[in-house]
Amino acid sequence: MAYVHGYAERESERLNDQAGALVELLHHDTAYPAGSRVLEAGCGVGAQTITLAANSPEAQITSIEISPQSLAVARERVTAPNVTFEQADLFSFRAEPFDHIFVCFVLEHLRDPYAALRRLRTLLRPGGTITVIEGDHGSAYFHPESDAANDAIDCLIKLQSGDAKIGRRLYPLVSEAGFGSVRVSPRMVYVDASKPELVDAFTLKTFTAMIEGVREPALAGGLIDADRFDRGIADLAATETFSYTFFKAVADRD
Amino acid sequence: MAYVHGYAERESERLNDQAGALVELLHHDTAYPAGSRVLEAGCGVGAQTITLAANSPEAQITSIEISPQSLAVARERVTAPNVTFEQADLFSFRAEPFDHIFVCFVLEHLRDPYAALRRLRTLLRPGGTITVIEGDHGSAYFHPESDAANDAIDCLIKLQSGDAKIGRRLYPLVSEAGFGSVRVSPRMVYVDASKPELVDAFTLKTFTAMIEGVREPALAGGLIDADRFDRGIADLAATETFSYTFFKAVADRD
Repeated sequence: MAYVHGYAERESERLNDQAGALVELLHHDTAYPAGSRVLEAGCGVGAQTITLAANSPEAQITSIEISPQSLAVARERVTAPNVTFEQADLFSFRAEPFDHIFVCFVLEHLRDPYAALRRLRTLLRPGGTITVIEGDHGSAYFHPESDAANDAIDCLIKLQSGDAKIGRRLYPLVSEAGFGSVRVSPRMVYVDASKPELVDAFTLKTFTAMIEGVREPALAGGLIDADRFDRGIADLAATETFSYTFFKAVADRD
Repeated sequence: MAYVHGYAERESERLNDQAGALVELLHHDTAYPAGSRVLEAGCGVGAQTITLAANSPEAQITSIEISPQSLAVARERVTAPNVTFEQADLFSFRAEPFDHIFVCFVLEHLRDPYAALRRLRTLLRPGGTITVIEGDHGSAYFHPESDAANDAIDCLIKLQSGDAKIGRRLYPLVSEAGFGSVRVSPRMVYVDASKPELVDAFTLKTFTAMIEGVREPALAGGLIDADRFDRGIADLAATETFSYTFFKAVADRD
């Protein structure tokens, strides 16, 4: 679906805003050494690739993406000399094992994230690391509370191919896929009126915009009626405080 | 209710475990200068008083508590020389204005937390600070998900006098009570199998035990049936990951 793969103009805008606001929170502790070979699996429109390349300027990054439309956007926006793009499905992609693998906002859209992790493990050299960052839409809560807003959020949870609440289960998922030394850390975004820029960048332009993005399929699928959905969006946009948590897992291939 | 005020033996044990596991997360950034006069409003059985006194050994702390039973426990367990206990209701307590006020796990049990904050403001000198730490039972989520566990948690949310989800609204609450420079920070506890001590101290002995504590009133009140409740408790105890967030507000009296 368009809202998932992110090649629609508006979606590119959203992912860009999201990456801008969250760069520090999500990426500050990821930097790969000079000369290391890094696979970014599922780079989408390159929103995370920019940061990845900037934080590891001496690493060689290979960013793969299944969607040619997304990849075209990524190629245009990412000018870092240490990134090579390749159109590929991670389940059939072949290469010499990498030193490190980076996966961000990808597993949450897959029907079988466990299989993806097993596959990625074969692309990692023994001793190499994997880093996985995912959201958890069930972690969103806010004040004032709103049943309509929760119903609108549930529409995205139901429509998302994959698991929209994958963040909370990264630990068992990565462990069971055979990786070792799994460490998961939550990255919570908390927004209130003392941080108007974050209200704008995260509550409105990232989270609320993402929910708004499923209005058409949610109405078409009979998941909710228009008034209820729009009320939910209005309530989200008017929240006085908003909380959301991303989860980041780092693990080794033993 | 006994489970709220904490003078039952088992509850004292629970609060003790909670304080032990969470001291660093909640208290590391609270220390009052030498000679300052600090009011701890609602000290309960003294679980937080111990840390407060240890982190501010040169401050003079007055800890008040409405329940004589709780206060008796607090007096016995807290031996710090810089703490004075007094049995008092914060709505009628009178004293010279304090330099700082500390309130932890109190507002969530009050019917009118706004009135309490307004009242506390009159006990604070201009330029003094107030620190408020509260939980938010609606912030709890876990893997695997369990409707029975959510139903059991809802029993506590319904039975708690006050607002069991007050954490998320501390910012507007403290602001509207007339304090200035309000800063709220979330303190998230995330637990998975890589931290077995935290599974035991927080998931089991703090959160699950707290929910278990309302079994009797929940069944007596017809909120849930016994099988469902016990299933919810078993599911909570078996979670592979568990997340909960406390909120800490610091503000000034202008």
